[in-house]
Amino acid sequence: MKIDGKDYRTIWLSEDGKGVDIIDQTRLPHHLEVVTLRTMQDAAAAISDMLVRGAPLIGATGAYGMALAMQEDASDRSLTAAHDVLVKTRPTAVNLKWALDRMGRVLADTPQANRRQAAYQEAARIADEDVEICSSIGEHGMALIESHWLRNGKSRPVNVLTHCNAGWLATVDWGTATAPIYKAVRKGIPVHVYVDETRPRNQGASLTAFELNREGIPHTVIVDNAGGHLMQHGMVDLCIVGTDRTTASGDVANKIGTYLKALAAHDNKVPFYVALPSSTIDWTMDDGVKEIPIETRSEREVTHITGLTRHGAVETVQLTPTGSAAVNYGFDVTPARLVTGLITERGVAKASRDGLIGLFPEFR
Amino acid sequence: MKIDGKDYRTIWLSEDGKGVDIIDQTRLPHHLEVVTLRTMQDAAAAISDMLVRGAPLIGATGAYGMALAMQEDASDRSLTAAHDVLVKTRPTAVNLKWALDRMGRVLADTPQANRRQAAYQEAARIADEDVEICSSIGEHGMALIESHWLRNGKSRPVNVLTHCNAGWLATVDWGTATAPIYKAVRKGIPVHVYVDETRPRNQGASLTAFELNREGIPHTVIVDNAGGHLMQHGMVDLCIVGTDRTTASGDVANKIGTYLKALAAHDNKVPFYVALPSSTIDWTMDDGVKEIPIETRSEREVTHITGLTRHGAVETVQLTPTGSAAVNYGFDVTPARLVTGLITERGVAKASRDGLIGLFPEFR
Repeated sequence: MKIDGKDYRTIWLSEDGKGVDIIDQTRLPHHLEVVTLRTMQDAAAAISDMLVRGAPLIGATGAYGMALAMQEDASDRSLTAAHDVLVKTRPTAVNLKWALDRMGRVLADTPQANRRQAAYQEAARIADEDVEICSSIGEHGMALIESHWLRNGKSRPVNVLTHCNAGWLATVDWGTATAPIYKAVRKGIPVHVYVDETRPRNQGASLTAFELNREGIPHTVIVDNAGGHLMQHGMVDLCIVGTDRTTASGDVANKIGTYLKALAAHDNKVPFYVALPSSTIDWTMDDGVKEIPIETRSEREVTHITGLTRHGAVETVQLTPTGSAAVNYGFDVTPARLVTGLITERGVAKASRDGLIGLFPEFR
Repeated sequence: MKIDGKDYRTIWLSEDGKGVDIIDQTRLPHHLEVVTLRTMQDAAAAISDMLVRGAPLIGATGAYGMALAMQEDASDRSLTAAHDVLVKTRPTAVNLKWALDRMGRVLADTPQANRRQAAYQEAARIADEDVEICSSIGEHGMALIESHWLRNGKSRPVNVLTHCNAGWLATVDWGTATAPIYKAVRKGIPVHVYVDETRPRNQGASLTAFELNREGIPHTVIVDNAGGHLMQHGMVDLCIVGTDRTTASGDVANKIGTYLKALAAHDNKVPFYVALPSSTIDWTMDDGVKEIPIETRSEREVTHITGLTRHGAVETVQLTPTGSAAVNYGFDVTPARLVTGLITERGVAKASRDGLIGLFPEFR
């Protein structure tokens, strides 16, 4: 996607053909800084310190971390060591292990002398495949936005509400929930996005707003409390969000608060779509509310918040009285009955086992 | 209520019997500061600068502002001038005009020589009546909490979720939504409160958490996104919130985001109660979503937030990228169909015209 007119991915090969460049996302939205990863340890730190985040991007960064390890030392020992270090950086990220295992298999089958080149090639392939998947999600989702554009007689922009950041910054390019928006705008369909700030980590107010801002797409940041009021008053045409895990029955676990927006959409007959690469489908699970484990994160994300002071410094301030406890659940589960459709790389499925199996018959 | 063991109201006569003491609520939760109002202009500034807030407390402060005016000059001209100045400080606060009109009527009928004393007496009466109303709301709501306590076999604290601050700080004492909690705890019923932080102004994280903290009632601050997840998992026994305006049909306009919690409560069969003095009922309105005007407030409340730095300073930081728009609706409307009951000073009514008329037959 574009930042101030220049095309970017979230991860790319440095000009020297060895280092790997990333955007330091901990500095967004107030500072845009590109960091070059020169060693496998740099890549590991970039993941664990959350300079990169979002399952697909973490996977790609892990893959490039393996390439950096091969650049330094292409031995079997180095291969195993790199896998061991990288896989521990974000233990719950499914894509990370998947990407590292794939790199490990390919490189184990490659003669040591060719491993360096093979590793960079395979990492690039993993990144390119992610771009391809997100682009397909974008095409399928774009058709939904287009149908609203036609239905309202092309009389006004289509209003999309999104929660958290399932944007290009979480992937290599395009994003998942944002891909339909970017595709629609490229096709000349005017879109306006309501961006939930997404407390406690504010990924909407910082990352999604940053993306849309720099891409030049009209958007309005709202507090997470506002979406119900907007939908009651016909100000949202459709919702599109991402998902971290999708059950075989179409329940989706996404950033905390997604369920509340799905309830409001249902109560006001606003379509509620979830965009996902099929890799997030957990075919072994049925009842998301009962079965999906929900991560409890640090209280401090609730009690404190970081922003830009009027002097241009990035400062963290305490919001709650000293002595008040807080609790911080990272995700909630939206039952399939509240989901209008699942936008995948193969098309839009009903949020049900039949719907998903229809598009992915290999999991029947 | 208590702050660190000492009994407080939000407004009281100074020791000299002339000045009026208030808690400067703009300094909460990080600093507790009592300010003495010595002139009518002090009272006007306290209201307009939001040192005091909450409709009942604004009304009481306005009344004491009239008393301060009489203390300075008990003439008819002074009486009219004080009313004119005070009524403009928060033009939409219904209680303010009501209290000022009442003071004006009483004082106009009082000989000039007795006005000073009459004014202080009438202001005290207005404050005491508010305490009485909130105390009654507390008694009626307490019975609901008690029934949960009995239903769960007294085996664990009753979990109450509340949104925003309908606490004693918004009234003279007890609060509306918090009164049942304070009454229950005084009766020996253990209560734990989930406090929605209530973006954008964070009245939950700052004021409600402050109240409960200083009163020693167990509570946990959560982001506004979390309530749905808690209710899905049986962690909330009942919700109690306040309301700024209630239609004759039982629709309630309360702080933005209340509607989302009511949807989650309904979806999970969690009782959802609204506590209110009957003065907030607008008997002329039926359809709250269509008829109640919703205030749009400054974008800056969304894009910026204030908290305590690690150096103990209170600092404001920017959350969103420069250039991203924001919109800030102050309230939303929860339809009566999602409200289990309305807790009034006369008892608990069904959220319907019949329910309300049953308790307030004089409005038939």
